[in-house]
Amino acid sequence: MYFLRFKYQDAVSLGVMDIDKSKVVVLENLEGILEVDNIKDMNDLIKSLKEDDIEKITLFIDQTTDYLQIDDVKVLSPIEHSFRNLFCLGKNYVDHVHEVKSMPNVKGDIPEYPIYFSKTCYPSIGPDDSIVIDENLTKSVDYEVELALIIGKEGKNIAKEDIVDHIFGYTIVNDISARDLQMRHGQWHRGKSLDTFTPMGPYIIHKSQVPYPVDLDIKCWVNDELRQDSKTSKMIFDIDYIISDLSRSTTLYPGDIILTGTPAGVGMGFDPPKMLKNGDIVKCEVEKIGVLTNKVKCL
Amino acid sequence: MYFLRFKYQDAVSLGVMDIDKSKVVVLENLEGILEVDNIKDMNDLIKSLKEDDIEKITLFIDQTTDYLQIDDVKVLSPIEHSFRNLFCLGKNYVDHVHEVKSMPNVKGDIPEYPIYFSKTCYPSIGPDDSIVIDENLTKSVDYEVELALIIGKEGKNIAKEDIVDHIFGYTIVNDISARDLQMRHGQWHRGKSLDTFTPMGPYIIHKSQVPYPVDLDIKCWVNDELRQDSKTSKMIFDIDYIISDLSRSTTLYPGDIILTGTPAGVGMGFDPPKMLKNGDIVKCEVEKIGVLTNKVKCL
Repeated sequence: MYFLRFKYQDAVSLGVMDIDKSKVVVLENLEGILEVDNIKDMNDLIKSLKEDDIEKITLFIDQTTDYLQIDDVKVLSPIEHSFRNLFCLGKNYVDHVHEVKSMPNVKGDIPEYPIYFSKTCYPSIGPDDSIVIDENLTKSVDYEVELALIIGKEGKNIAKEDIVDHIFGYTIVNDISARDLQMRHGQWHRGKSLDTFTPMGPYIIHKSQVPYPVDLDIKCWVNDELRQDSKTSKMIFDIDYIISDLSRSTTLYPGDIILTGTPAGVGMGFDPPKMLKNGDIVKCEVEKIGVLTNKVKCL
Repeated sequence: MYFLRFKYQDAVSLGVMDIDKSKVVVLENLEGILEVDNIKDMNDLIKSLKEDDIEKITLFIDQTTDYLQIDDVKVLSPIEHSFRNLFCLGKNYVDHVHEVKSMPNVKGDIPEYPIYFSKTCYPSIGPDDSIVIDENLTKSVDYEVELALIIGKEGKNIAKEDIVDHIFGYTIVNDISARDLQMRHGQWHRGKSLDTFTPMGPYIIHKSQVPYPVDLDIKCWVNDELRQDSKTSKMIFDIDYIISDLSRSTTLYPGDIILTGTPAGVGMGFDPPKMLKNGDIVKCEVEKIGVLTNKVKCL
């Protein structure tokens, strides 16, 4: 099952969709299964769902005749306002570590510990929204396709055997990064936190649809040129490690989002670098989740 | 005027307080001036206030006889859940830059550009709450008193002459930092984002009570030993610079919090370092705002 946010006839709704992507059911129709009145956004929906709700909703979608087609709606970012910004990992694929050796404040070694940082993402943008670049501020903007984990259950000091219990599902985030700002401000946060720099979506796939440990193809194209092409199983620190390590003394809450790093093939890894320019179409795909496409617009 | 959050007779309320700290008025009593039903937390309150409401509220407090005394309530962190985590500045006082030269991934130079990072702070903690340290995870925890700006009005690419329009007020944050984690995870975010590592408060002072440019005494004591003692006018990048620079291509929203950096005197600046230990009392003071006191509890 997928969870999504969309616009239909000028109204923004939350909804669920079957795994074949043939039926989109608006949240209101789940009254009886969920207390939908209490659910204002995706964070509330994630927080309110119990494990056995998933089966009930799946059954409901199977049987209902009251649904929309995915092509009839405008899909939006699934989580417009993340509960606590994004927890991010840097340098979490070996081949990516090697390609960024030349960046001034990114050391070239395989990290001994995860490199955590955060990016500000309110509002995130959704499929087909524009990545807007002010060329007076930055001339060096890059793409980074990433698998994003969505936390479903509160926890601290989470044991490795309990990790899956705490995951709600997965989506895609393109961790857009202004490399010049990322370097000149010392820490990475600023260059990754400009407006429109967090494309997210198109859907959140529920964890029940993805065998664990997660091994999904992850790819990114710019104008139909395949730039990034890897597997999520190639992470240096895997999902078990990340959630158990990050939750030490730090409570993770439902709706928290963790970006798991990007594989090789980012623009600055090329010689000469291939940075984003006006009109570029960036397409991020993670197997089973979908394709997240955005166009670059330079001011 | 001050804005505050507090517990009284087991209920949590928002409220306002006069500048003499003699009258605390609960939000509900402002019905008629504000649409209090729409205000669920401090972010809503900040967002809903218009410039001329401040005068009306001040007048109301002056005249009302229905108020609490500050000693009758338990003051809580003014913003339990920040709108978008905290925007933070590193190395923004010259004398502090010099004292941290020895840290492995903190370069010793005066920064040419602001060093922005973020810390995760839900929930922040309030006055008299405990700073909890798990000594299995970190043995090197430090204090950092900081002046925190609260944004009151949405804006992007904010011009220097409009800065004050966009500020709501000021509070104190103690940017608690696990130095060992801050270093070993490469970026600073992780070591600053453990549970209880964001003491905040006691109050938000409205900007109308603080002459601009802001020049306030800023101090921190550990167990009555004065460790940090400076003036906010000694920032390398001042408030004008920070807000105009940070808002370039990044919209700032009402409720956003910006920490402006800490002056010299942090624990790791001493030789040998004076890190926090079980039972320590940390007292942060910024002139006009108040005193934020927390006790350290090691697990």
